[in-house]
Parts: sequence; C-alpha cells; structure tokens
Amino acid sequence: MKFEITQIGTIYSPYITKEECPIQGVTKPDGKGKIEIFPEYEEALETIETFSHIMLFYIFDRAGEIKLSRSTFLDDSPHGVFASRHPCRPNGIGISIVRLERKNKNILEVSEIDILDNTPLIDIKPYIPKFDIRDNANNGWVEPIKFHKKPENRE
Amino acid sequence: MKFEITQIGTIYSPYITKEECPIQGVTKPDGKGKIEIFPEYEEALETIETFSHIMLFYIFDRAGEIKLSRSTFLDDSPHGVFASRHPCRPNGIGISIVRLERKNKNILEVSEIDILDNTPLIDIKPYIPKFDIRDNANNGWVEPIKFHKKPENRE
Repeated sequence: MKFEITQIGTIYSPYITKEECPIQGVTKPDGKGKIEIFPEYEEALETIETFSHIMLFYIFDRAGEIKLSRSTFLDDSPHGVFASRHPCRPNGIGISIVRLERKNKNILEVSEIDILDNTPLIDIKPYIPKFDIRDNANNGWVEPIKFHKKPENRE
Repeated sequence: MKFEITQIGTIYSPYITKEECPIQGVTKPDGKGKIEIFPEYEEALETIETFSHIMLFYIFDRAGEIKLSRSTFLDDSPHGVFASRHPCRPNGIGISIVRLERKNKNILEVSEIDILDNTPLIDIKPYIPKFDIRDNANNGWVEPIKFHKKPENRE
C-alpha cells in the first residue's frame, strides 16, 4: 500500500552539508534552527509553547542510495537500517528531538538541531517525558560507541 | 511538495477498536503485539535484536476527520494537533515506543503496544537512550493530567 505525505513547513538550520551536520542533536546542543510552519497550519501549534522539547518529523530529501544494511557514522560494522538511524532507508522519514526556544506565530525557534538546512517538515509532536522516557532501555549496539567526527566520504 | 510512502509491514495487536486501545503504551505494558516485516525488507532488521526498545512508525489508517485544533483523550481543552499526539492530523503518521521481546526472521514480538490491530507499518528505528532521553524536558500541558479511561464518543 502507498500513502501520500504533504509538506507542512520547512526546517532551516546552519548545516548546509552532511559533513557539518551533527550525528545527533544531543552532541551539539547549541545548534540553532528555525522552523517555518506554513500559515495554513498555524492553528495546529496551539499550546505547543507549553513544551520545552518537541519532535520534528521530516523527509531526508538529500539521502543517497538506499541499502537495507550498511555501516553508519558510528561504527564500521553493517547494521540493518531499521536497527540504525541511517537516512538512506526505504521510507526516508527522519525524527529529531529539539528544544523549543520560542514561538512567534507560525515560526518556531529551536536548538539542539541536527537537520540539514531547507528540509521539508511533515509533522510535529510534543516530546512528553511521561510517555517517551524508558529508563530501563538499553543502547543496543550503540552502547560502547564513543562520539567522534564523521568518517569521510561515508553516506 | 508531496512524498510517497510505502507500507513495509503490518502491526498486529489485541486492540480491534479505538476504545480498547490504551492511550499510550506505558499505561499498559502487558499489551503484546506482533510486527510482520515484509520478507523483502528482512535484511534491514540486522542487529535490531541488540535493542530492548524500538520505535514503530505507522499510518493512522482509521483516523477520523482532521481538525487542526481539538480536545484529546487527556483533557477537554483544545490543543493544536502539533501540540498533541492526536491521530487525526495533517499527515497521519503515528509513533510508538515498544519493548522488543523476540525476533524470529521477519517477525518481531513486542510488548507495551498501543496500536490498532492490522495497522500499516512504514518504518522502524531503534530507541537509543543516549540520543532520545531528555532528562530536562517538561510535560507541557500534559503535566497535571492523571491517566483515566478514554472519554466516550470522542475521536
């Protein structure tokens, strides 16, 4: 079955190239971004300013070739793309948790961003610790990984 | 801009009606589900068994009328749908964090499920506490809410 998704806004960030973009927002909390929600959706933001953090859903519109299993920025071993956050995946949907700094009409200012500039936004949901924190979760194969610079020439 | 999303599997759960389905998985941890990934995507599951929790992305295929602001199951005040997890939203994409109990080829057995039976799956990502836990986040307007039975006849 196929489904159609419509862009509802645009994500602006300081990251023009994949090399500049941090591996995850938590590794670069000062990265600031601006989210423009198209004016016809502004009403859907009502009471969003009560949250400190939100989840952005977007399209990996500059992703390369889709492979079902490949190595990631984090280590050299292959992982299935459903066992990693790799952007080149069957449905190229990304999710990022960002800090909501300010709301001004249909514009959200955020930090902790790890998204390429000019990325199509498709949904926003509030990050709700009561629902979204699993204190008993493990980090799987990511557990022993130390954060490092992205390997060169790796998609 | 429009994007096309393809179903990659099917989510099976004990919940046939919206009334039976818990408000969030954390409120009903014993709810068991079975995720069938279509065989052509099985390779994308490689090393997923190293994770205790995964995020399921799916389509709210039985959502009712889309309104940009409405009350939710949690309280009677209206909230913009980007400030709530309401299923009736411009792009009807749902996300649930579930516990991964077992993997057998292209089948994942999970618990803590809050998804309707027979729901189209569109992506899986690992839940990674290093990336996904924000200890400093607030619960926004959800903070004072006590969990309760779903109000009757509310979409």
